[in-house]
Amino acid sequence: MSIVIVGSVAVDTIETPKGRVERALGGSATYSSLVASRFCPVSLVGVVGEDFSELHRSVLESRKIDLRGLETVPGGKTFFWHGRYGSDPNERETLVTELNVFEKFRPVLPESCRSTRYLFLGNIDPELQHSVLDQVGDGVFVGCDTMNLWIANKRESLAALLGRIDILFVNDGEAAQLTGESNAICAARAILAMGPYAVVIKKGEHGAMLMTETFRFVTPAFPLENVLDPTGAGDSFAGGFMGCLAAAGDTGESTLKRAMMFGTVSASFTCEDFSVAGLANLEYRDIRRRFDEFALMTAVGGEF
Amino acid sequence: MSIVIVGSVAVDTIETPKGRVERALGGSATYSSLVASRFCPVSLVGVVGEDFSELHRSVLESRKIDLRGLETVPGGKTFFWHGRYGSDPNERETLVTELNVFEKFRPVLPESCRSTRYLFLGNIDPELQHSVLDQVGDGVFVGCDTMNLWIANKRESLAALLGRIDILFVNDGEAAQLTGESNAICAARAILAMGPYAVVIKKGEHGAMLMTETFRFVTPAFPLENVLDPTGAGDSFAGGFMGCLAAAGDTGESTLKRAMMFGTVSASFTCEDFSVAGLANLEYRDIRRRFDEFALMTAVGGEF
Repeated sequence: MSIVIVGSVAVDTIETPKGRVERALGGSATYSSLVASRFCPVSLVGVVGEDFSELHRSVLESRKIDLRGLETVPGGKTFFWHGRYGSDPNERETLVTELNVFEKFRPVLPESCRSTRYLFLGNIDPELQHSVLDQVGDGVFVGCDTMNLWIANKRESLAALLGRIDILFVNDGEAAQLTGESNAICAARAILAMGPYAVVIKKGEHGAMLMTETFRFVTPAFPLENVLDPTGAGDSFAGGFMGCLAAAGDTGESTLKRAMMFGTVSASFTCEDFSVAGLANLEYRDIRRRFDEFALMTAVGGEF
Repeated sequence: MSIVIVGSVAVDTIETPKGRVERALGGSATYSSLVASRFCPVSLVGVVGEDFSELHRSVLESRKIDLRGLETVPGGKTFFWHGRYGSDPNERETLVTELNVFEKFRPVLPESCRSTRYLFLGNIDPELQHSVLDQVGDGVFVGCDTMNLWIANKRESLAALLGRIDILFVNDGEAAQLTGESNAICAARAILAMGPYAVVIKKGEHGAMLMTETFRFVTPAFPLENVLDPTGAGDSFAGGFMGCLAAAGDTGESTLKRAMMFGTVSASFTCEDFSVAGLANLEYRDIRRRFDEFALMTAVGGEF
């Protein structure tokens, strides 16, 4: 099956202890779509300005991502983010955020996207996430990301959204902020009580946990020797996770577990290079090879 | 097979955000032995003072731990530690350390221990760890723990020790301190170059990694809702790990992977109560039940 991914498309200037890139391709929907496109057909819904370069567009097009839902605002400027990482890749400082055309973004799904069975709502204002849900049918499986800003400022809208989605992706800090629970299991349980079928709590280089009412799954991160730029790792995780589900056309327990592992290895490729460079030429067979390696690294196997 | 465990036996006063215990049973060899004794027969080699209570001794005796190697110094006082944890269970502050009889501890293995095939050297001065190795035969499989103090002050002795042991247990901070590498894989590789067959890097609530020249294994921690007191978690990990190997009489790849999982679940029981209360009545079937639960939580299973 195919998937629709809604979120930001951006240009990023990124500084890490290992280097710097200027005005590179970024945005939540970009990372998620580049990864998910290795699993299944992807339609991206977002907005860019007239300054969005042909080079950046071609990165998405070369992966056969359907861009009919990517609006270009005449005379507008693309969302810009400038961030800096210190020695801890889990912590970053935002130096500049220019919303530009993203400020007035009102996602409109092309007709071809409205009957999708899989939808990923990247991190945007929960009110916009609601508006996307209003445009799709009932049988859709919805994954959703959010961030500290919306938890603090749009709590009611976000709470209502949680009753409309199937799986929420948050990091450990966001889970604590949303629920007031610092323990990950307690936070996950509180989130499930708000409505979604499942929640994934991401811990960056320390892995991730999936919880539903009936089972949990925990995974370490794929161990990396050289993290160049963690930007987009969480979006890539969600892209691999949701792409795995859509490709399987299934959301049962064993597929959700596989999705956790595919999300984890997908994120690892993103971290190994700046911006989307770790994804641009990635093929499914590369992801699959690392998945198999990771499975060997984490499974006791045989009779245990 | 059986195992010999050498290390500290102590009384601890522990403060955590969830409570406090006074002069409770503690020490690295205590935790490791209590856990390992659920897997195989254990002989403990250590030292206590005349003040070591019958109640504390009976906790060890009730687990059938052989205490012929536990020396009692007449008129001496048992090693005392007073520590405090904040909200992050991975960080603690030492308020008081009174070495007492531990200051002049010179471990002497009873004759019955000298032909052991499995030996765990808990965290003591590497010179004493050397002296223990001088008392055993060649065919012994040796696990070894250490700490920041010895890495800083006894580096040469520790480096020489690494050429004499099979597996080193360190936490991520110690691995970085020992090697100058902040990345866990790079640090593990540097440690392997110093001699041991394998290294386990422990990350507390974030799990652990095992690395040899030919394979690696990564595991998250067992997810816990309520951590009361993490004291002894690392020692319990090593006790479960080494106990698993000794019980199997095998140190092959698949047994080492199982040992990582058994170490992880063993540590989780320790964290669920103060001092050794989580271990005192623990049976192998409890550990095994949690192992099976953990295996389900971490393995994708089936054809992936």
